[in-house]
Amino acid sequence: MRAHDHRRVIATVCLSGTLEDKLTAAAAAGFDGVELFENDLIASAMPPEQVRERCAELGLGIDLYQPFRDFEAVPPDVLADNLRRAERKFDVVERLGATTVLVCSTVSPDAVDDDELAAEQLRALAERAAARGMRVAYEALAWGRFVNTYEHSWRIVRRADHPALGLCLDSFHVLSRGGDPALIRTIPADKLFFLQLADAPELDMDVLQWSRHHRLFPGQGSFDLPAFTAAVLDTGYTGPLSLEVFNDVFRQADPGPAAIDARRSLHLLEEQLGGTGIAPAPELTGYAFAELATAGAPEFAEALAALGFARTGRHRSKPVELWQQGEARVLLNAAPAAEVAIAALGVDTADPARSAERAGSMLAPILPRERGADEAGLSSVAAPDGTAVFFCRTEDGGGWTQDFQAAAEEGEGIGISGIDHVALTQPFDHFDEAALFYRSVLGLRPGALVEYAAPFGMVRSRSVQDRSGAVRLTLDGALVRRGRWAPAVPHPQHVAFAVDDAVAAARALRRRGAPVLPIPDNYYDDLDARFGLAPDFLAELRENSVLYDRDDSGALLHVFTRLLGGRVYFELVQRVDGYRGFGVANAPVRMAAHRRHRG
Amino acid sequence: MRAHDHRRVIATVCLSGTLEDKLTAAAAAGFDGVELFENDLIASAMPPEQVRERCAELGLGIDLYQPFRDFEAVPPDVLADNLRRAERKFDVVERLGATTVLVCSTVSPDAVDDDELAAEQLRALAERAAARGMRVAYEALAWGRFVNTYEHSWRIVRRADHPALGLCLDSFHVLSRGGDPALIRTIPADKLFFLQLADAPELDMDVLQWSRHHRLFPGQGSFDLPAFTAAVLDTGYTGPLSLEVFNDVFRQADPGPAAIDARRSLHLLEEQLGGTGIAPAPELTGYAFAELATAGAPEFAEALAALGFARTGRHRSKPVELWQQGEARVLLNAAPAAEVAIAALGVDTADPARSAERAGSMLAPILPRERGADEAGLSSVAAPDGTAVFFCRTEDGGGWTQDFQAAAEEGEGIGISGIDHVALTQPFDHFDEAALFYRSVLGLRPGALVEYAAPFGMVRSRSVQDRSGAVRLTLDGALVRRGRWAPAVPHPQHVAFAVDDAVAAARALRRRGAPVLPIPDNYYDDLDARFGLAPDFLAELRENSVLYDRDDSGALLHVFTRLLGGRVYFELVQRVDGYRGFGVANAPVRMAAHRRHRG
Repeated sequence: MRAHDHRRVIATVCLSGTLEDKLTAAAAAGFDGVELFENDLIASAMPPEQVRERCAELGLGIDLYQPFRDFEAVPPDVLADNLRRAERKFDVVERLGATTVLVCSTVSPDAVDDDELAAEQLRALAERAAARGMRVAYEALAWGRFVNTYEHSWRIVRRADHPALGLCLDSFHVLSRGGDPALIRTIPADKLFFLQLADAPELDMDVLQWSRHHRLFPGQGSFDLPAFTAAVLDTGYTGPLSLEVFNDVFRQADPGPAAIDARRSLHLLEEQLGGTGIAPAPELTGYAFAELATAGAPEFAEALAALGFARTGRHRSKPVELWQQGEARVLLNAAPAAEVAIAALGVDTADPARSAERAGSMLAPILPRERGADEAGLSSVAAPDGTAVFFCRTEDGGGWTQDFQAAAEEGEGIGISGIDHVALTQPFDHFDEAALFYRSVLGLRPGALVEYAAPFGMVRSRSVQDRSGAVRLTLDGALVRRGRWAPAVPHPQHVAFAVDDAVAAARALRRRGAPVLPIPDNYYDDLDARFGLAPDFLAELRENSVLYDRDDSGALLHVFTRLLGGRVYFELVQRVDGYRGFGVANAPVRMAAHRRHRG
Repeated sequence: MRAHDHRRVIATVCLSGTLEDKLTAAAAAGFDGVELFENDLIASAMPPEQVRERCAELGLGIDLYQPFRDFEAVPPDVLADNLRRAERKFDVVERLGATTVLVCSTVSPDAVDDDELAAEQLRALAERAAARGMRVAYEALAWGRFVNTYEHSWRIVRRADHPALGLCLDSFHVLSRGGDPALIRTIPADKLFFLQLADAPELDMDVLQWSRHHRLFPGQGSFDLPAFTAAVLDTGYTGPLSLEVFNDVFRQADPGPAAIDARRSLHLLEEQLGGTGIAPAPELTGYAFAELATAGAPEFAEALAALGFARTGRHRSKPVELWQQGEARVLLNAAPAAEVAIAALGVDTADPARSAERAGSMLAPILPRERGADEAGLSSVAAPDGTAVFFCRTEDGGGWTQDFQAAAEEGEGIGISGIDHVALTQPFDHFDEAALFYRSVLGLRPGALVEYAAPFGMVRSRSVQDRSGAVRLTLDGALVRRGRWAPAVPHPQHVAFAVDDAVAAARALRRRGAPVLPIPDNYYDDLDARFGLAPDFLAELRENSVLYDRDDSGALLHVFTRLLGGRVYFELVQRVDGYRGFGVANAPVRMAAHRRHRG
């Protein structure tokens, strides 16, 4: 049974809102069923029968009722009370029409460290479940008092030896403790009742707090979910692949996009496991263009002209200009817009149609095409932050550029050869979703997460890029959703152009009166202290507001413009000796400078 | 030298914004000086001389320049570079007019584990500092590669034996590793150059991440700051008490209130160390009143009437009614208001004048008095969330009640004896500040922090109460600042009234058609499973929407009204056998019900 033949399930605890909100979102994202989290049911005004009906209407099964806690390995009087408690829960599960109940390994002070007793009592519980046509999935919590590894839970289940008692495996509980998934292969498939999947970032902290606040959907963290899942599937496991993920951000985010993010993460996992039938992402060869919604602000054209771009075309039917220098193409769209923004990115792909097909398979929202009769038919999808991504194949004089009437204008270039990267600050709730989107839809590879202190709060940053580095994006986001104190521009964005000589380019900018962002002297005094650069070189950097960074891979020289239209800016980037980063060390200085020279 | 004779200093890294913002906020809060964080200077357009001038204008000293990193215990070529780097930094420090530079214990891969070498090189550094009239304060980072305890840093400083080399102690670095501050007493005062204070919550996590994301001002965490500080002061240390605190919330919060919060935390610490001259908080005897800004909405009076309150007075000059039952007094203020809110709390104190004096000393913003010629002169201050706190002395027919013309109306009570507690949901940035405010201004004691998952995100909750429990507040807040998905009412508030028999009271409410909040059946099914309550009792709870909780200390029965004016609600609370909590376990159920019955 291949990964994508399994039922795809999401735990209601993954999503924010009321139970009604959660079920609606899960169904809309295409899940087959839910794990019903007890607290969601308890707070709901829908009686269990109605929940059952609602799920049926939505095409959702109730694949698991969870959790039942602190049952096993207790003295007889506590056992009697626990069995009574279980029967009341079985009543609810029966009314829901569900059949599998999750029982977590105990954390109770009443419990004793006695596998024999645990097995005996779980057997009694399973016997009662079986009498109602139900079964019990026993799960080792990573912080279980005595049972906290799947090997241990499996010993107990084996010892109990009841057909209605099996295991629930949760990738977080196994991998957070450094567990070896290889041994899972020794468990018979008919004893694996349920599989919960969660990823997480590598964090050195108490495992309960880690679990409660930092779980992520598969592909968003550091765990090897493909290997873990493969081990389970290799047993012949036929149950659902179910996501049980919660963190401080998802718990308060709109459940609609969160459910789609979740479903997409399963698609990616299934692809990693092989054989989904989803077309692999075609190779990308570069940026076709970056399109800016300028809302008619003239400063964009002025800035591009000062940067040595030439207006090489006008769109045949829309108020859009094409500006070009080397392989860097910028579209200025003067149509009325809600906000100034990098409205769209065009990526050149070996096969635009297949790229679009893959994007659809990966649940990217397809955007409607708007084109004149004789215009190129470009497919595009919306990224989580609303940026449109167009699938292009830019050829000399062909493709989408045909939609533009050639303009005779020429510019005196400053050595810009193309787009180095595009930087999109992400809305708070979409940071992890965005990286997963670009990874799954475009096949880009996420880099390491970087955190840094900026003048108005902590920021995290992650790059995503294709194998060759032809298409690079940086995604930034505030670690905490900003409030009123933060600058009025919550999500600045920029396009970075590649140059061979940043100092020469910056000199040219200065001559032309380009809106270069002034960098303070204190920064250069610090550069001097840190790097001991040659005095002449340092003086040139200082004079031209060129920033500098160095790491193991090489050096970076870069220069910024002021904010245009109050939000978007440009950067010139010179990578020396294959510098691979994005100058994050200089970001706080750049932010403070933008703050001073805002508006 | 007593605690409050020391200079009070705050590190600029504690505060959000540009360096200009930070200096302004530090001065406004009454600090004597700052630790200047290098990154704040580097990003600033003010040259060091101008920073010096600006500080002088604001009455701030630059008590420390920090940090200089990764200096000691390196091979000769690295040493040469590090000394060059140090000289460039000394240039900056000279221009700033500062004299003390913080050097953190190395985390560099270039360094070796050799105390002798570290001492020798630090001595060389101190020699160069001394030549410029400066000195070096060496600090053991908790995550230092070789030197990570203050005992170790002290061995190195002692071995280096240079008058311009001393220690910087940071409470976080010592206490986060479980260090024993007692040994600090063995260090001569003239070798203690600087003292940094930070509190933190008890967290089991990587110490660097803990430090970077979770530090708190003294009194907001779990560290024993008084004992730590006392150990330092006992040496005869004469340097500053300096706050070096950063966390994800403070880094993005308005620096004005944050600096005042910081300054208040030092006041409290100084008081704990004895002899500040600040009047101790007078004993509180209960709530005088809770005042609701109703914006004229009639539902408040209707609800109070249905709850058995009598309108016993009308204010002589304002559109304010006094409603009363037992010792519970509620003022309904119908004046135009920006929002429906618990606008004010009156607390009965043994000495209102002294309470007001203490509040002022603890930097509580004093509110202007508005009163007619013959009205009682009540002092009041503003809590961080804007709630006014009045200092009262309610006596039979005397005090502030004299401002109300007695009304003849009588109500048929339902057994309400007084105000049990008031619950104020805190704006995101003010959660920790609020607890410290009530602790320092009113002398209330903070309870343990509780976190729980609610339908629209994680919530944290902390109670503050006086010794006798006469004045109890609960402060709730979202763990993450909520976004658009969250309910439109970000900060619901409520007043909880004490009753002897919640079921009887709830029955009366039902009879009177009070706006009781319906609680779903599923909740009672779960109560049955969890507690096995007597069927008749459970049926009564269910029928009357009474919620139930039980803990080690006793049991709680409570019932809620719907939201009034879209924001404020009432609760009836019956505490059985001295139950001490606030029914947090039921909060998610209550929230979901308020969501259903909103508006």
